[in-house]
Amino acid sequence: MAHHIALIPGDGIGKEVTPAGVRCLEALARRPGLDFEFSEFPYSCEYYARHGQMMPDDGIETLRPHDAILLGAVGYPGVPDHVSLWGLLLPIRRAFQQYVNLRPVRLLRGLTSALRDRGPEDINYLVVRENNEGEYSDIGGRLYDGLPEAMAIQANVITRKGSERILDYAFRTAQARPRKQLAYATKSNGIKHSMPFWDEQVAAMAERFDDVSVEQYHVDILAANFVTHPDWFDVVVGTNLFGDILSDLGPATAGGIGVAPSANINPDPAVPSMFEPVHGSAPDIAGEGVANPIAMIWSVVMMLEDLGEQSAADDLMGAMENVTHEGRVLTRDLGGTASTNAFTDRLLAELKG
Amino acid sequence: MAHHIALIPGDGIGKEVTPAGVRCLEALARRPGLDFEFSEFPYSCEYYARHGQMMPDDGIETLRPHDAILLGAVGYPGVPDHVSLWGLLLPIRRAFQQYVNLRPVRLLRGLTSALRDRGPEDINYLVVRENNEGEYSDIGGRLYDGLPEAMAIQANVITRKGSERILDYAFRTAQARPRKQLAYATKSNGIKHSMPFWDEQVAAMAERFDDVSVEQYHVDILAANFVTHPDWFDVVVGTNLFGDILSDLGPATAGGIGVAPSANINPDPAVPSMFEPVHGSAPDIAGEGVANPIAMIWSVVMMLEDLGEQSAADDLMGAMENVTHEGRVLTRDLGGTASTNAFTDRLLAELKG
Ligand SMILES: CC(C)[C@H](C(=O)O)[C@@H](O)C(=O)O
Ligand SMILES: CC(C)[C@H](C(=O)O)[C@@H](O)C(=O)O
Repeated sequence: MAHHIALIPGDGIGKEVTPAGVRCLEALARRPGLDFEFSEFPYSCEYYARHGQMMPDDGIETLRPHDAILLGAVGYPGVPDHVSLWGLLLPIRRAFQQYVNLRPVRLLRGLTSALRDRGPEDINYLVVRENNEGEYSDIGGRLYDGLPEAMAIQANVITRKGSERILDYAFRTAQARPRKQLAYATKSNGIKHSMPFWDEQVAAMAERFDDVSVEQYHVDILAANFVTHPDWFDVVVGTNLFGDILSDLGPATAGGIGVAPSANINPDPAVPSMFEPVHGSAPDIAGEGVANPIAMIWSVVMMLEDLGEQSAADDLMGAMENVTHEGRVLTRDLGGTASTNAFTDRLLAELKG
Repeated sequence: MAHHIALIPGDGIGKEVTPAGVRCLEALARRPGLDFEFSEFPYSCEYYARHGQMMPDDGIETLRPHDAILLGAVGYPGVPDHVSLWGLLLPIRRAFQQYVNLRPVRLLRGLTSALRDRGPEDINYLVVRENNEGEYSDIGGRLYDGLPEAMAIQANVITRKGSERILDYAFRTAQARPRKQLAYATKSNGIKHSMPFWDEQVAAMAERFDDVSVEQYHVDILAANFVTHPDWFDVVVGTNLFGDILSDLGPATAGGIGVAPSANINPDPAVPSMFEPVHGSAPDIAGEGVANPIAMIWSVVMMLEDLGEQSAADDLMGAMENVTHEGRVLTRDLGGTASTNAFTDRLLAELKG
C-alpha cells in the first residue's frame, strides 16, 4: 500500500531541500513493500503574490486525505510573517490538531557542538512542544490604541484537555526510552495562573506513569542548563512558547538550526501529520543549490517513523550519520564544499551500499 | 554624605555572600569622600517561619528611605516559591517600580565559557529586562476547575507607558556604549496581540534614537544566537518573561549563573533600587562557607555605579577581574579550593595594592 505524501516545497531553499527528501524516499521505495505517491502543492509566498493568499480556500480539505505533509519552508523578503506563517503554517498545525511538535536534539557523529568539550554522547534529548494552544492564542486586543494610555492584552489559554494530550504523549515517549526521564518547563514561580495549572496537570499525569522520573525546571534555568548540562536531559516537554524557545536553543548547541528537523503530529491516523526542517527559507542563499538538506532528510526520517516504516527510517538515518561521520562530503555551512545535490548523491550511495 | 544601604541577606548562601559584599564596601569607604551606612533586615524564610510572612506589613515603608537595597538570596527547602518570592522579591520590585532589570553578560578574564572557542572578547553584552509588567501580571484565573473542561487563562499586559520607559532606558544605554547596537526580543510571528504592540513601541522609540542601530529577533532565534553568535550582541532588551529567560541563558554561556549579577533599577532617586546575585540560596552548599561571592560583589559594583560612585565601582571590578585572571584563589565552583572568605581576602588585598 502506497503512502500518500503531500509536498509543499514553499519558498527559497524549501524548493531545494524538498527534492532531496523526495529522492531519499524514491530510493527507499525501490525496496519491496514500500511505496509512496506524491502530490505537490505550490502553496507559498509566490502563490500569495499571484492569488492574494498562501493557499486556496479549500487548501486544508485538499491536504486532509494525505498520510503526511512534507513542508520545505515558507517566507519571502517583503512578505510579512503574519501573511506567510499565519496563512499556511499555523492553520495547518491547528486545522489538523497537530498538537505535538517534536524536535530531536542530537549531535550527529562528525558534527561539532557549539558547546565546549561536548560530543554526541552528551547531547541526545527530545523536545516535545505543545503545538496548538497556550501562549499562541488568538485572544486579546488593545485598549486606548494610539493614546498615551494604550495597552495590549494577550490571553494565554491552557486547557486540561490540551495539556493532558501533550503530556500523555510526552510521558509515553519518555517511558519508551531507556532513561525514562521527563523534564518539564514551567514558570510557576513568576506566572501565577497558567503555570501552576500546567504544573498540576503534570503532577496528575505523573501518577499514571510511575516508572518515569519527572523533574520540574523553570524555563529560565532550563535554558541555562541546555548550555551547561545538556547530558541531564532525555525528554523535555513544554507549552507552546517555552517549547518553541527550547527547541531552537537545543539545536543551536547541536550542529545548528540548519540541521534540525521537526514533526507536527496528530497521532490520529485520520488526519495528516506534517514534517518540516526547523530552518526557514533562507533567501540569502536561495537559488545557489548549496542549502544543507540534512534537516529535511532528518524530517523525512521522522515521517517514516510516524508512518510505521521504522526500518526504512533507521536505514536512512544511519546512512546520513555515516556520511556526516565520514565528513568528506558536507555542505558549506558545515565547513564543506558540496552542493545540496552532491550531498544527497553521497547519501544515496551510502544508503544503497 | 553617606549612602544608606539596606541589607537583606535572606537565606542560605545569601547570608554568606552578603557579608563579602559589605566587606568590599567597607574597604572602599576608607577612601575620603566615600561612606556607607548599613541597616540589616532579617526578611527571609526564617523570618517567615517565625512570623508567617516574609517581611512585616510595613516592610516596604521601612526600606523606602534607603539609597539602595542589597539582597543576598531568598528561598528555603519546603517553603514554596509563591511564599518566598511573591512575599519579598516581587513586591519590592513592584512597590518601588524597579522597572529595569539589568544583567550584564560578560566573560570575566580567567573564566571559561561553556561555548567552544569563545573568550572574553566574544561575550560582552547587557540584557535589559522589563521588570514590572508583561507576562508576569496578576490577571487571570480558571474556568471549570476540577472538571475535564478545566482551563486556566493568564493575561499578559503590555502598556505603552511600561514599554516606553524600559525602551527609553535600553536605547539610552545602547547609545552610551561604543557599538550603539540594540537587539530586541519579540515573538510577533506567533503571538498576535501583545507582541506586535511591543514591536510598534520599539519602532516609535527607534525614531528618537537614530544613532542606535536596532535589530529585531524572535525570542527563539535570539536564544539560539546567544549560543552560536554571542559576539553579535551589545544591548538586548526584552519583556519580563523573555528578559528573564535570556538573562539566565546569557550567563550560562559566560562562567555560569553562579557569577552573574543583577540590578533592579528605578532611575528615580526618590526610591531605592535593588541589587542581587542571579543565583539562589543554594541550600545544598549553605553553611559550608564555600559559596562564590563574585555574583554578589559584581552586584555591589552595579550598586556603586547606580549611586554615582563610578571610580569605586571601576576599582572594585578591576580588582575582582585581576583575581579571576590570576586564577590562583578561586572558589570550588570555578575549580579552585578557596572559601568565600579567602576569595574576599585576596580581592581586598588586590584592591588595596
Ligand atoms: C524567582 C523568579 C520569580 C524570578 C523572575 O523570574 O523574575 C527570577 O527568575 C529572576 O529572574 O529574578
Ligand atoms: C514561525 C513561528 C510562528 C513558528 C512558531 O513559533 O511556532 C516557528 O518559530 C516554529 O517554531 O515553527
